[in-house]
Amino acid sequence: MIKTRFVAAALFRPLLEPHLPDWVEPHWFATKQEALELAPLADIGWFDVHDKKDMAAIIRAATNLKWLNSIYAGVEGMPLAELKQRGAKVTNGAGINAITIAEYVVMGMLTIAKGYREVVHAQDRREWLKESPGKMELYGSKALLLGYGAIGKLIAERLKAFNVDVTIVRRTPGPSSLAPDAWQARLGEYDWVILAVPATPETEEMIGADELAEMKESAVLVNIARGSVIDQDALVKALQDRQIGGAFLDVTTPEPLPVDHPLWQLDNCHISMHLSGRAQDKMFARAAERFLENLKRYHKGEKLEPLVNLDLGY
Amino acid sequence: MIKTRFVAAALFRPLLEPHLPDWVEPHWFATKQEALELAPLADIGWFDVHDKKDMAAIIRAATNLKWLNSIYAGVEGMPLAELKQRGAKVTNGAGINAITIAEYVVMGMLTIAKGYREVVHAQDRREWLKESPGKMELYGSKALLLGYGAIGKLIAERLKAFNVDVTIVRRTPGPSSLAPDAWQARLGEYDWVILAVPATPETEEMIGADELAEMKESAVLVNIARGSVIDQDALVKALQDRQIGGAFLDVTTPEPLPVDHPLWQLDNCHISMHLSGRAQDKMFARAAERFLENLKRYHKGEKLEPLVNLDLGY
Repeated sequence: MIKTRFVAAALFRPLLEPHLPDWVEPHWFATKQEALELAPLADIGWFDVHDKKDMAAIIRAATNLKWLNSIYAGVEGMPLAELKQRGAKVTNGAGINAITIAEYVVMGMLTIAKGYREVVHAQDRREWLKESPGKMELYGSKALLLGYGAIGKLIAERLKAFNVDVTIVRRTPGPSSLAPDAWQARLGEYDWVILAVPATPETEEMIGADELAEMKESAVLVNIARGSVIDQDALVKALQDRQIGGAFLDVTTPEPLPVDHPLWQLDNCHISMHLSGRAQDKMFARAAERFLENLKRYHKGEKLEPLVNLDLGY
Repeated sequence: MIKTRFVAAALFRPLLEPHLPDWVEPHWFATKQEALELAPLADIGWFDVHDKKDMAAIIRAATNLKWLNSIYAGVEGMPLAELKQRGAKVTNGAGINAITIAEYVVMGMLTIAKGYREVVHAQDRREWLKESPGKMELYGSKALLLGYGAIGKLIAERLKAFNVDVTIVRRTPGPSSLAPDAWQARLGEYDWVILAVPATPETEEMIGADELAEMKESAVLVNIARGSVIDQDALVKALQDRQIGGAFLDVTTPEPLPVDHPLWQLDNCHISMHLSGRAQDKMFARAAERFLENLKRYHKGEKLEPLVNLDLGY
C-alpha cells in the first residue's frame, strides 16, 4: 500500500498519532528547518507555526500538497493563489474558536454596558461604589452584526436571549437582515456595531471615518474580526472626539499594539489583545477532532469541512 | 369626594404627579421629619428612603396605611408583622431590577471564565497578553440556580442560550430541577452555584462551610441575593484555601464592605458593590409605571402585583 504522507507540527502529535489510520504515514516537525525539508513530501500538511511568514514559506515548499489544514480561522497570510494553482484543498479553523469568541463578544458588551472596568478599578482601591459606572441594558438595544459565519451565528443566538434586536448583513434579504449595500445608510440606528467578518480585500477598512460619523454618539463598536477591517486612525479620532460611545477591540493594527499607541490610553477603548479565541481550553482538541473527521472524508473522496474558498479568501 | 391620601418621597413626584387620577390626594416629603409627620395621613405610602431604619420608623408611623409600595425587592427591613396586623398590603420592586441583575450575573460569570479582570489590569499596564488569563467556556458547563423568581427565570433564559446546563431548585419536581432538600447532596456536580433567593430566615446562611466543602474545586459561587444567605466567614476561608474556584459577590455583609475586610484582597473574589440592580437607567420609570398600574387595580379592588407575602417575607 502506498501511504498518504502527512506532515504536521509536532505540537499536534499527541492529539493525532494515536488516532491516525494505517493508510497515513505521519512526519512531525519541530523546527522551521525540519518543516521546510519535510514539506515537499507532504500529500497532507498541517503547517501551523506562529510566524505567518515562516508558515507561508513552508506552504510554498510543499509542492505536492493536496490538502492543507490549519487551526487558524484567518488564511490571509497563506499563498492562496499558489495553493489554487496546485489544486490543493484548504481547510481552516473557522468555527473552532467560535464558541469562546461569541462568549467574549457578549462579555465585552456587558462589561461596557455596566461600566465593569471601573468596578474592577474600584475594587482595586477597595472603594464601595454607590452608583453603577454603567447603566445600559442589553435588553431592548439594537445590534448590527456584520459577518454571519460560525461566529456571527453564535453571537446572534446569545444576544437574542438578552432581547437584543439583532440585524445581520447578508446577501439573502430577510426580516432581520440588510443587504451588503444597505447597512451603511442605517448605521445611525444601532447601539452596537459588531464586526465578525473575514479579513478580505472586500472588508478592508469597511469601518472608516464616514461609517464612524454615521454611528450613534452612544454606540459601541465591537471588533473580533481583524484589525484591518477598521481604519484605525479614524477610530482613534472618533473615540477622542467622543463621536461614538466606545470600542471593544479584540484585534488591532498592528498586534501587539505598541506601548505608545493612543488606543491604550483612551478611556472609551477596551483592548482584549486577541485573546477571545484563546479563552478556552478545547481549541487543540476540537481542531484534532475535526481533522480526524476530515481525514475519513478525504479517504472516501468526500467534501472536506470547512473548505476555504481560495478566490474569496475565507 | 373623599380622596385617597398618598404619601410619597418627593423623588418620585416628577414621575407620578402628572399621571395621578383625581381620586388621589398626593403628599410629598423631602425629609425624614416631613415623612414622619405625613405618614399617619397615608392610605397609600411609598416611603423609600436610603436608611432602612428611618424607613421602618416612617412605616410604623403610618398607622392608617392600607397599601405600602416600595421600589426595593428586599423587604427584610420592614416591620412586616405590624403591617400584617394593620391589614396593609405591600407591593415591592421584585422584578424591576430583574433584567439588569440577570445581565450582571452573566457578565460576572463570563468575566471570571475569561479572567477578564486580569485583562483590564494588563490594559492598565499597556501590556499585550499572549495568553488568556481565563480559559473557561460557559458552553457545556453546569449551573445550579437557587431561587427561581423574576431574576432567576431571566438568568436561566440567558444561560441556556450559552448552552449552560441549568438546574433549578423548586418544590415542583422536573427534569432540570431539584427539590429544596436535594440540592446540597448534588453540589459537587456544578461549575456555577448562583444565589438568587429572597433573604428570609429559611435562606439565611444557606451556603455555609458544609456546602462550600461539597462544591467543586473549580466552582464559582455567584451571589446577587443578599449577603446574609452566605456564611461569609466560611466563604473567606474557602476562598483563602482555594477550596472553590472563586466568588462573584454583588452583595456582602455588611454593605459597604469595610476597607480592611479580607474579601477585598482575595484574588479569587470579585466584588460588585450591590450595583447589579443599579446598572440600568429605567428603574424609576419602571417602578412608577408599575405603581400607576397598581393604583388602577387598587381603585377597582383588584389584586395588586407583585404582592409581598408578609409571613414568608418576599
